Amino acid sequence: MQALSASPHMATLRTTELAHHPGERVRLTGWLHALRRLGGINFIILRDGWGTVQAVTENAADLADLTEANLQSESVISLEGVVTANPQVPGGFELLAPRVTVITPVMEPLPVLISKREVKAGLTTLLDHAVTVNRHPKRRAVFRLAAGVMAGFRTYLNGRGFTEIQTPKLVASATESGANVFPVDYFDATAYLAQSPQFYKQIMVGVFERVYEVGPVFRAEPHATARHINEYVSLDAEFGFIEDHFTVMALLQDALYHIFQTLETQYAAELALTGAVLPQAPETIPHLHFADAQELLFAEFGEDVRGEPDLAPEDERRLGEWARREYASDFLFITGYPMEKRPFYTHPDPARPAYSNSFDLLFRGMELVTGGQRLHCYGDYLDALARSSQPTEPFAAYLEAFRFGMPPHGGFAIGLERLLMQLLGESNLRLTTLFPRDMHRLTP
Amino acid sequence: MQALSASPHMATLRTTELAHHPGERVRLTGWLHALRRLGGINFIILRDGWGTVQAVTENAADLADLTEANLQSESVISLEGVVTANPQVPGGFELLAPRVTVITPVMEPLPVLISKREVKAGLTTLLDHAVTVNRHPKRRAVFRLAAGVMAGFRTYLNGRGFTEIQTPKLVASATESGANVFPVDYFDATAYLAQSPQFYKQIMVGVFERVYEVGPVFRAEPHATARHINEYVSLDAEFGFIEDHFTVMALLQDALYHIFQTLETQYAAELALTGAVLPQAPETIPHLHFADAQELLFAEFGEDVRGEPDLAPEDERRLGEWARREYASDFLFITGYPMEKRPFYTHPDPARPAYSNSFDLLFRGMELVTGGQRLHCYGDYLDALARSSQPTEPFAAYLEAFRFGMPPHGGFAIGLERLLMQLLGESNLRLTTLFPRDMHRLTP
Repeated sequence: MQALSASPHMATLRTTELAHHPGERVRLTGWLHALRRLGGINFIILRDGWGTVQAVTENAADLADLTEANLQSESVISLEGVVTANPQVPGGFELLAPRVTVITPVMEPLPVLISKREVKAGLTTLLDHAVTVNRHPKRRAVFRLAAGVMAGFRTYLNGRGFTEIQTPKLVASATESGANVFPVDYFDATAYLAQSPQFYKQIMVGVFERVYEVGPVFRAEPHATARHINEYVSLDAEFGFIEDHFTVMALLQDALYHIFQTLETQYAAELALTGAVLPQAPETIPHLHFADAQELLFAEFGEDVRGEPDLAPEDERRLGEWARREYASDFLFITGYPMEKRPFYTHPDPARPAYSNSFDLLFRGMELVTGGQRLHCYGDYLDALARSSQPTEPFAAYLEAFRFGMPPHGGFAIGLERLLMQLLGESNLRLTTLFPRDMHRLTP
Repeated sequence: MQALSASPHMATLRTTELAHHPGERVRLTGWLHALRRLGGINFIILRDGWGTVQAVTENAADLADLTEANLQSESVISLEGVVTANPQVPGGFELLAPRVTVITPVMEPLPVLISKREVKAGLTTLLDHAVTVNRHPKRRAVFRLAAGVMAGFRTYLNGRGFTEIQTPKLVASATESGANVFPVDYFDATAYLAQSPQFYKQIMVGVFERVYEVGPVFRAEPHATARHINEYVSLDAEFGFIEDHFTVMALLQDALYHIFQTLETQYAAELALTGAVLPQAPETIPHLHFADAQELLFAEFGEDVRGEPDLAPEDERRLGEWARREYASDFLFITGYPMEKRPFYTHPDPARPAYSNSFDLLFRGMELVTGGQRLHCYGDYLDALARSSQPTEPFAAYLEAFRFGMPPHGGFAIGLERLLMQLLGESNLRLTTLFPRDMHRLTP
């Protein structure tokens, strides 16, 4: 099978391919990232979809097309030149004897300068002009890493017999956790945006045993913090025939290690550009029971939160610090959260039924993953709903899975943006997603 | 890096692995797909996440755990037995001397029988009980093929330098085509569900040159037909530095051929189960200009639609028939749709400006893909909006991309469910998605 006639443009080199063409005259296309003049020498920096390259000339006439029309940065250009080794420049090659052709002129100065090593602007400006700011090499590297995380997640799970699914984002009722859902005007009815694929991924364990989904989730939480956004990407997995939540934790650990290995081996340039520090972790991620975590917070930090039903962000930060110190681990599992703070489908700890077979995974002191074992017997679901005084009718489709045979099962959900935030040491979650949505922001 | 202690259940064999263990006593887990008694011989069919296997015994006592409790189909069981070659059975192996252990009993008969070769039920029942019906081997094979299509799409585009993106599904205004969007109650504002990632994927060409996205799109179209649903999965790609729409068509063709090759080589069992027929196509997909297509409909079918601004489904069906006959091709490109029926960002044909540099791809006589070249100059966008009497303000973020340099670019969107519908010869699009959403259906 062969292509339709390929266009001549398709053969243009990428900036990352120069090393294979030393001495050749080549053509690149991209954006005029910067134009600099230093002591009679002119530097043209071209940025394409993969990197940047500089072209050098002492002959100002080579730049006539750019300078006479007073073209601005981000003009789209074609650049021809001779590939020449220069150990001083990133990548080791530059272009000499350049010839520039303008493809799309830009006549206005940019709203934010993106040609320097850092984008110097406040958060609001960065987000308001994400369309332009995301072109900055360091900014876009964040989103290339996002692609790497998704690819690593899928590759690992495909190799373990998981099937990728796509479940509906429009659901009939606000059943999963009752509040914090966005209502949608759906023809003559009201629908809701799915907070997570939780119910559907469990249902699909009845079909494929092992499933995963990468997709958007929607949380109507009115939190205006640096670590909350209202639409984010969730990496979900769910699988059957587990022993308990430790089976889930083992698979999650391996998935995460595979993801970071993917970044290390295939995204080295992006890691370097962003200054990301890959996590340090022992062969087995340490784990601590919720009750023991509270005792530890008291003993080590003098903070008495014993009896509280959940951990506060400050508690998580301290536990992360402790895991780092004691285990040289950037990760720490907290297991056995109290049942009262977990959703109704959570499986209790058979030995201590006030605690659950659930876990959170802390990454550098912040909750990155929530997971656990779920109930699998139909009668247990009826009991759990009755205990929380909920009618069964809105759950009819979900309950059908359990009426007709479900194995012990569990799963987890990784927040893509949280993973990037902690990997990059980014101070605001909004800077780890292309076009963030929060209480006050629906654009760009 | 090693796993946490693996559970003993993790070592259980899959039904697809028996051929590697002839003569061994092995353990499988799954669902009691069927229990049959024929002339003193008992057959237990176990279904796991990957296939089915039969166990055979003349000793009714081997089934005591199942029969005495009157357990129903879909009970979750563990099954031990000796792997024995039997050329009569699918897969070539069965289990002898079986021992069954019940993991999760099912006490009620199923709402729909899923143990026969076909599920015999009307469309409404199939959809109402999709939770159970999707467990049927033939039904679930459809969704395994869906996973194969997504995987093939990603693999091809990754290999061509594309970056995967995730763009927001909540947008500020109903700008893209004005109508047919779902409003969302978003804190104190109204948001809308994205009809497509069109604007964002174009914006991202400014960042990565080549991008793709696999995700849900939402159409508030009040169509109650067999080929419309209101939430579906779109395989979107967009890339820069094209010549015109033919560059896009060439890449699309290669992507599709790669997808079908992936199914052929890696999803043979699912193709066989569903009876899917892989498309027949020449090395180069034939293409026909819109105006010529109308002339052809008149000349070949006596149908005079010349001057109409669009093709009707019946026209597409006839053109598909013609391509099949003339070119032995299940695919046909129709190019140059009239500008008046295409969205404002469509690039006109420079030689015939009433026509566009856009295309549809018909697959077996139905529209599968829409794509084309987009405008890339800022001034052209201002003109196009002015011509359609639209204010520029709601488009401010989108227009920022064009103000600050965009190359000639284009792309396409493949409807995942439509591809499956035509591949499988399925009569209703609802049966190609796990849990369809239409005007009257938000459950299961």
